[in-house]
Amino acid sequence: QWMMLDWKTKRPDVLGDPFGLGRMVQDGFVFRQNFSIRSYEIGADRTASIDTLMNHLQETALNHVKSAGLWGDGFGATPEMCKKNLIWVVTRMQVLVDRYPTWGDVVQVDTWVSSSGKNGMRRDWLFRDCRTGEILTRASSVWVMMNKDTRRLSKMPDEVRAEIGPYFVDTPPVIAEDGRKLQKLDDNSAEHIRTGLTPRWNDLDVNQHVNNVKYIGWILESAPQSILETHELSGMTLEYRRECGKNNVISSLTSVSGASVGGLQDSGNVECQHLLRLEDGSEVVRGRTEWRPKHAKNFGMLDQAPVEST
Amino acid sequence: QWMMLDWKTKRPDVLGDPFGLGRMVQDGFVFRQNFSIRSYEIGADRTASIDTLMNHLQETALNHVKSAGLWGDGFGATPEMCKKNLIWVVTRMQVLVDRYPTWGDVVQVDTWVSSSGKNGMRRDWLFRDCRTGEILTRASSVWVMMNKDTRRLSKMPDEVRAEIGPYFVDTPPVIAEDGRKLQKLDDNSAEHIRTGLTPRWNDLDVNQHVNNVKYIGWILESAPQSILETHELSGMTLEYRRECGKNNVISSLTSVSGASVGGLQDSGNVECQHLLRLEDGSEVVRGRTEWRPKHAKNFGMLDQAPVEST
Repeated sequence: QWMMLDWKTKRPDVLGDPFGLGRMVQDGFVFRQNFSIRSYEIGADRTASIDTLMNHLQETALNHVKSAGLWGDGFGATPEMCKKNLIWVVTRMQVLVDRYPTWGDVVQVDTWVSSSGKNGMRRDWLFRDCRTGEILTRASSVWVMMNKDTRRLSKMPDEVRAEIGPYFVDTPPVIAEDGRKLQKLDDNSAEHIRTGLTPRWNDLDVNQHVNNVKYIGWILESAPQSILETHELSGMTLEYRRECGKNNVISSLTSVSGASVGGLQDSGNVECQHLLRLEDGSEVVRGRTEWRPKHAKNFGMLDQAPVEST
Repeated sequence: QWMMLDWKTKRPDVLGDPFGLGRMVQDGFVFRQNFSIRSYEIGADRTASIDTLMNHLQETALNHVKSAGLWGDGFGATPEMCKKNLIWVVTRMQVLVDRYPTWGDVVQVDTWVSSSGKNGMRRDWLFRDCRTGEILTRASSVWVMMNKDTRRLSKMPDEVRAEIGPYFVDTPPVIAEDGRKLQKLDDNSAEHIRTGLTPRWNDLDVNQHVNNVKYIGWILESAPQSILETHELSGMTLEYRRECGKNNVISSLTSVSGASVGGLQDSGNVECQHLLRLEDGSEVVRGRTEWRPKHAKNFGMLDQAPVEST
């Protein structure tokens, strides 16, 4: 009986998207794409890495633009943006991970856009386990336009708003915005510093600068090994302040600020502050990450009743 | 008319594998899986990176073992291997890239296994453009078994041969073996040396050591930037000699040995020798790479008549 119901809801989805490239749903306001998690997308814990999730954010955002027929050239710019030499840059990204999928899981990613202030666009994502419907991850981001030559931020031209405005959804962000200001770390306030990080050839994207997903790896370079081994990343807020080219040299700074009473020994939750900066001191990314003990049960965070093994 | 023929050959394949997880073909001797190339799998050149191809090698090899019903536990070990505490380790990998696929291309990967010497297994791969049938990449590798605790190589036990033998195909390697010995570089013979490379957290796989795909990135760290910018990797032979754990520090050495007459200036083909070694001098990987000028036409390498744009 259950199988039958399941078949009814899933099968059309599969048939409608045989190559897994995604399609519009919800009257064209939401783009949906399924990903089956592959062996090389998991890490030492056998679960998808945060890089993998960030990659899926990027892929669905770009395919959404394509599906909407708004593909100009390059990396998600609309035809009017191309005319005006504008590109999208992300300024803020917030991610909450309730559960990391594992190899073989099929993840259904929904994404949609809405207005953000006068000149920005918000893009949200919702990741679900395709089989159970369980919410795995939520993410929310803010994007603005930048002139490709001057590298200065631009207002959103009316012609661009006319292109993308019809796709804007009027909903609150999928994550309540964490209004706490991100701390600026320096050599004194950071407890862990890793210097001399340089882009690998494969870190560059088609815009010839380091792809925003790669910053996560650099941030984790200065996170204490003990946290990486005992905890998993449960949440992250990043502010992107500067782009990074292939010849830049990066320092990664981390301060462990939010260890709960008892700290790591008691395996409580941990909060870290991060900064990526260039050698001249200018900030590339400011960030905050939250960590929970591995294999902890997240009562109240999942939209399912937890099942205890007996 | 053509569309109709195309539909006939492609559609059953899609329906037989709705989630893109692959399936057996050719009487169960060949495993086939399709990959649509995603935005985050391409590099600055807008084509799939060599890492991406290597990831697809790994994924299809593991899914082949699963599909054959030979999944023990872990990372491709058969039930008898698990009983005997054996794991697979790759000792040699040869890859020839005729053309790199680009974002949105669907690549059909076939893989099969055969005997290699008394105790080894050869695994071959053939990548084709799913739409045109054009051969994109060929790869051939040799695998042996290692005891998980002693980390010493093992003979292939009869019980394991009984499991995997029935899947062995009696065909020559998909690439004629390059019998030239790989040169051992040292501080004198290497022209480019990059020291102090350390695994990032996400470089580790479920065996808690650095995944073999990650070595490519380290090899390219010492390849001259001028070659990376003007040439693309057309071929690669790697010999894996030692595993690398999370606390190892790696040096990457490169020597440009095979620049044709005229060298880089004339944009001819280039050959490089590589070595990854630990700080104590022990060799991790010996390698040779071949490079061709970007956007060069490869007459004779493709199984299609080249089409000139006019």
